[in-house]
Amino acid sequence: MGAPMIECVPNFSEGRRDEIIEAIVRPFKNRKGCALLDSRADKDHNRLVVTVVGSPEPIEDALLEASRVAISHIDLERHQGGHPRIGAIDVIPFIPLQNIDLAGCVKLAHAFGKRFWEETGVPVYFYGEAALRPERRALEVIRKGQYEALKSEVVNPERRPDVGEPKLHPSAGASVIGARSFLIAFNVNLGTGDIAVAREIAKAVRASSGGLCHVKGIGLALEDRGMIQVSLNIVNYQKNPLYRVVEMIRMEAKRWGVSVVETEVYGMLPADAILDSAVYYLQVAGFDRRQVIDLALLDMASKNEVNA
Amino acid sequence: MGAPMIECVPNFSEGRRDEIIEAIVRPFKNRKGCALLDSRADKDHNRLVVTVVGSPEPIEDALLEASRVAISHIDLERHQGGHPRIGAIDVIPFIPLQNIDLAGCVKLAHAFGKRFWEETGVPVYFYGEAALRPERRALEVIRKGQYEALKSEVVNPERRPDVGEPKLHPSAGASVIGARSFLIAFNVNLGTGDIAVAREIAKAVRASSGGLCHVKGIGLALEDRGMIQVSLNIVNYQKNPLYRVVEMIRMEAKRWGVSVVETEVYGMLPADAILDSAVYYLQVAGFDRRQVIDLALLDMASKNEVNA
Repeated sequence: MGAPMIECVPNFSEGRRDEIIEAIVRPFKNRKGCALLDSRADKDHNRLVVTVVGSPEPIEDALLEASRVAISHIDLERHQGGHPRIGAIDVIPFIPLQNIDLAGCVKLAHAFGKRFWEETGVPVYFYGEAALRPERRALEVIRKGQYEALKSEVVNPERRPDVGEPKLHPSAGASVIGARSFLIAFNVNLGTGDIAVAREIAKAVRASSGGLCHVKGIGLALEDRGMIQVSLNIVNYQKNPLYRVVEMIRMEAKRWGVSVVETEVYGMLPADAILDSAVYYLQVAGFDRRQVIDLALLDMASKNEVNA
Repeated sequence: MGAPMIECVPNFSEGRRDEIIEAIVRPFKNRKGCALLDSRADKDHNRLVVTVVGSPEPIEDALLEASRVAISHIDLERHQGGHPRIGAIDVIPFIPLQNIDLAGCVKLAHAFGKRFWEETGVPVYFYGEAALRPERRALEVIRKGQYEALKSEVVNPERRPDVGEPKLHPSAGASVIGARSFLIAFNVNLGTGDIAVAREIAKAVRASSGGLCHVKGIGLALEDRGMIQVSLNIVNYQKNPLYRVVEMIRMEAKRWGVSVVETEVYGMLPADAILDSAVYYLQVAGFDRRQVIDLALLDMASKNEVNA
């Protein structure tokens, strides 16, 4: 078993001031043991989403450095934006990638939450798998009424932070730290203009209406293109693999005489998620990811055997 | 466009003496810019096959170091083994992986062949895409009669080396250097004991009997398992992708009422070869390999951005 590798997707409440955005992102760059995969700021949301992967320790160090920048430049008393938020460092999820499981990321989240409070003075709520109260598994419960409401409600026992005092940081609010599985955003576009079909198919596939346990989904119209879309989040690709979701949608679409025109993977996904589907369709027996040259190279790179 | 990355699979005529094998393999280990993926010695063949990937320069340096070891310990006058060979360093193919094409590997092979002769005194034949005479594209033409016959025939104009004098090295013979595309060894096992079916399907699929241009294949019986096998080499996976080969075999098998029980990938394959099939079956539009976390990490590792 090699070194644990995680993904972390911290969300900061700054999507407009370029120099601040850059200063927040900087600690994730050129840091030994972690790699910045993506950072995208949204002006309407007034929010910055950073995607970083690597070993837990350097990611945690970078998170604290970035958080100090965020705290000194973001004032929730004046912050406005389309996305719900309770703090300057709004959400920090730890996501297992390799050689660590979800339980391991829960431990990381708890230890980091404590350190975060101690070093920044910003109180912490735990969410997702790291939630200490069942209702706090859901982000929306913790963020209810956002910063503005939480400021006064934080003294109520049911809204008290999990770490820190029952009082928000005067400018940086509070932060939500947690652990979750890797999430794949996946869309399936269907050759009809009838949105009712997309809605019916979304219902058949998603957990909330009795479908696959780790799939969320809605039906949308793609009006420009005369197509409809089943827009999905696969929150556990090991239990609900891509091929099973696609084949289920193909099967359901058949009853309406509708075919899958194309699918889209939105954002990143782990190699295992896509290998798994290739191996299913090609019926490969006994396949080992180390047979993939690129992945064998990556294993070696992470063991410092390649320094090209 | 990043740095060129190649695979190289040198074959040495030593498969029995462990200390010599180890000394030949050693130069490929812990070398900056290249990674040893595999090395396997076969006692019956009395042959060692090394698989290495990385940048051309360090691979070439390692090849020369390993060759000097091979030359000082392998004597073709006494060498015996089941595999055809003409030299201590029998074959060196350069295979494009990334940011280099087959023509680029032909150039590498030609330049390296010259350097190899100058530094070792072993004459060189070019084969595969690097062949300077059309008949020498095929290894078997160059190796006809092996070391024993070539020793006297090397003076004949049609057997004269491409680089070096018309005379073999007194103990190390000659070497064959060339360029070829990456080759995927792929087997398809079918649920019948009737070998005739495997042979018919192999005929339908392979180039030599009019099938797919870059596929070689034969039908075999897997007697222990009561199955038959279509055993394939896909010599250009870009032009003849895995999914197309599998679907063609499924289609042909149908006429015999036979189904594909499983397939096998033997050895290594590039990520692109398997992504391509996943993307086909899942109908993913606009997919970019950099959406795969592991491959994005590898890109970064090769740019020295990850040093975990």
